[in-house]
Amino acid sequence: MPTMTAAQKRAHAKADYDAFLAECPSRKLLDRISDKWVALVLAALGSDGATHPGRDGTGEPRAMRYSELSRRLAGVSQKMLTQTLRSLERDGLLVRTVTPTVPVTVTYELTDLGLSLHQVIRGIKRWAEANMGEVLSHREEYDSRAANET
Amino acid sequence: MPTMTAAQKRAHAKADYDAFLAECPSRKLLDRISDKWVALVLAALGSDGATHPGRDGTGEPRAMRYSELSRRLAGVSQKMLTQTLRSLERDGLLVRTVTPTVPVTVTYELTDLGLSLHQVIRGIKRWAEANMGEVLSHREEYDSRAANET
Repeated sequence: MPTMTAAQKRAHAKADYDAFLAECPSRKLLDRISDKWVALVLAALGSDGATHPGRDGTGEPRAMRYSELSRRLAGVSQKMLTQTLRSLERDGLLVRTVTPTVPVTVTYELTDLGLSLHQVIRGIKRWAEANMGEVLSHREEYDSRAANET
Repeated sequence: MPTMTAAQKRAHAKADYDAFLAECPSRKLLDRISDKWVALVLAALGSDGATHPGRDGTGEPRAMRYSELSRRLAGVSQKMLTQTLRSLERDGLLVRTVTPTVPVTVTYELTDLGLSLHQVIRGIKRWAEANMGEVLSHREEYDSRAANET
């Protein structure tokens, strides 16, 4: 049997993952990245909504300090932000850089892999913001229908 | 002050939602739709991966029975699937149709609003499946680095 090239191996690997299957690791990865904090961290680091389009047509991605991220994601707990950042770092979606200033400066920046997920995930935050009004009126209608039926 | 047209009102409403703000309802909606079961229900009803492209360039969306959905989303509990479907119905993303056969037939189908979210969210499942291999190698690297540092 001929040896597979790297490209063939990648194509093969891709075809093997299916998040509809309970045991597939991509099911867990889908769970991990389907998370509002992940969406908001990626939006912040990808500078979603910035006025100067950078590479890939988004706002210019940038490095942010922990404290900046914490302010941008209003209401996030320190524990949740730390866990989210560590998990994104472990998955190769962002890099954490420690600069030996006094006190040390720690910054976070998206990798190319993180940017590729940002491209996909940014649409969800935008969808939620753009369709909030319509969803709210559907909820009112549903709730008043449910109330009439009882 | 002149009365706003419906389009102006919508544009105004859009500008007002910002999921970075803790108290904005769009933060909760982002949380609700950032969910692997939502992603998988939308993928199933939107026939993600079907070979016949339908409207919007996806597979042809279709109505599915509860039992079909339950099989497609391998491993989903009845409670979780029921909750997810009810929430999506309440938000106007799908319609539930009861046909008075014996026993009754209940089917679920995406609305136009649901289809618009499907267009956005399908990319996340695909990203997870396509980049699983790369994420796994980043994890190995991270874990071995962490092990060396201790």
